Amino acid sequence: MDYKPIGGVPLAMPLNVLERNINKSVTLTLKDGRTLEGKLTGFDEYMNMILEDTEETKEDQVRRVGTVVLRGNNIVTIVPK
Amino acid sequence: MDYKPIGGVPLAMPLNVLERNINKSVTLTLKDGRTLEGKLTGFDEYMNMILEDTEETKEDQVRRVGTVVLRGNNIVTIVPK
Amino acid sequence: MDYKPIGGVPLAMPLNVLERNINKSVTLTLKDGRTLEGKLTGFDEYMNMILEDTEETKEDQVRRVGTVVLRGNNIVTIVPK
Amino acid sequence: MDYKPIGGVPLAMPLNVLERNINKSVTLTLKDGRTLEGKLTGFDEYMNMILEDTEETKEDQVRRVGTVVLRGNNIVTIVPK
Amino acid sequence: MDYKPIGGVPLAMPLNVLERNINKSVTLTLKDGRTLEGKLTGFDEYMNMILEDTEETKEDQVRRVGTVVLRGNNIVTIVPK
Amino acid sequence: MDYKPIGGVPLAMPLNVLERNINKSVTLTLKDGRTLEGKLTGFDEYMNMILEDTEETKEDQVRRVGTVVLRGNNIVTIVPK
Amino acid sequence: MDYKPIGGVPLAMPLNVLERNINKSVTLTLKDGRTLEGKLTGFDEYMNMILEDTEETKEDQVRRVGTVVLRGNNIVTIVPK
Repeated sequence: MDYKPIGGVPLAMPLNVLERNINKSVTLTLKDGRTLEGKLTGFDEYMNMILEDTEETKEDQVRRVGTVVLRGNNIVTIVPK
Repeated sequence: MDYKPIGGVPLAMPLNVLERNINKSVTLTLKDGRTLEGKLTGFDEYMNMILEDTEETKEDQVRRVGTVVLRGNNIVTIVPK
Repeated sequence: MDYKPIGGVPLAMPLNVLERNINKSVTLTLKDGRTLEGKLTGFDEYMNMILEDTEETKEDQVRRVGTVVLRGNNIVTIVPK
Repeated sequence: MDYKPIGGVPLAMPLNVLERNINKSVTLTLKDGRTLEGKLTGFDEYMNMILEDTEETKEDQVRRVGTVVLRGNNIVTIVPK
Repeated sequence: MDYKPIGGVPLAMPLNVLERNINKSVTLTLKDGRTLEGKLTGFDEYMNMILEDTEETKEDQVRRVGTVVLRGNNIVTIVPK
Repeated sequence: MDYKPIGGVPLAMPLNVLERNINKSVTLTLKDGRTLEGKLTGFDEYMNMILEDTEETKEDQVRRVGTVVLRGNNIVTIVPK
Repeated sequence: MDYKPIGGVPLAMPLNVLERNINKSVTLTLKDGRTLEGKLTGFDEYMNMILEDTEETKEDQVRRVGTVVLRGNNIVTIVPK
């Protein structure tokens, strides 16, 4: 049930923006307030994601967590660096 | 399972309004209270969205965040500028 | 998977009530406590909606917000004026 | 994917109970704590509903709100009068 | 997409347990903390339910509410008496 | 839409683990903080479950509740004894 | 409805990362704040998971819980050790 554009304006797809950022650094904001910054190495259609070399920030405390697999429904925003 | 209008009144589709605002400035209110203002460059049928040149406001603090991909289920309202 | 009435009583459909209020003023109550009053110009089967000339009320503060696209899952009640 | 009864006991369907109460007074309790009492004039398979001549009670404050369309996922209980 | 048992152990189905309790007294615990005790007269595949002669308990206050239709997604546990 | 393993490592299925614990004691943690310990006698593909001879613990208070049917979406973890 | 990559960059799948960690130690963060560390022995397409030899940490209190079956929608992040 894809959205069928009715106009002639080119329309970017959110998942394609994710794909263009594969192997690049992104910052994710989660629903629980944590932010995760790492290299995006994969994702699927539910916006489940894989980050490598990840740094987690939680109430100003930073820690390295390496590889992280995230459930998409916990992600609020994805910001490419 | 689209809604089939029963009357003769023209009925706008919310996703078409989004499409008419492609490459224009919109303000999004998120469930976590943040507002994001930026240029809407894309979206999909789940209302996942892409903003460019985004400014985030969180408890009166404003910061520039550039490109943002948003999961649709965190978005409450979209206000075209 | 529409509901198939078993009796002979006429049964109104919620989306048809929305359609009858196209281009009329409605008041929406959102899950986050805000109310939005504006002219309903469109909606879809998920109850995503479009309001024009909208006035937002949030903790007794009123502001004009013009056109608003709303995600249906944030809407609690729709009251035609 | 309807439930197929395995026994011989007659089993009422919740939506049929709603239909039997069409044009009768019902009291709805919502997730946000409000109660709405009004005449049920319609509903659909998602339990979206239409009430007419509705009276809203919110923290002991009562106000008349006329016609109300409700999103089903905000409804907790429906009590026929 | 039913679960296909791989072993030989008989496996009861939760909805069948509900059916065996038709016309019997059950106690429901809701997400909002209320408990409802009444005679279960029906349910559907979403665990929407119908109780008759229902008694509602909310913070130690008990009141009779008669017939209640419940949306399944507000129900936590069902305890047959 | 089952997951299709790409490697050669044997992969257990969560529902099969539940099936192996049929008629055995399990402890469930619910989203509302309650724990329920009882004999698992059934479940379905939504992880709706049936416990027999159940003991409920809520803020250090224990009470016997007998048979319990649980909606799967309230369950966080299942721990076989 | 898998995501169809439009570029030539290899794209890892989150569930494949889980599969590569079968029989290895992972740390799960849950929505309720608990963390669970154990050997991942299985999962399904909903990210329901099975951990063995699990250690639960809840507000700095650690306890051994053995085998745990988890509902996927309670999981926020999965960190392979």
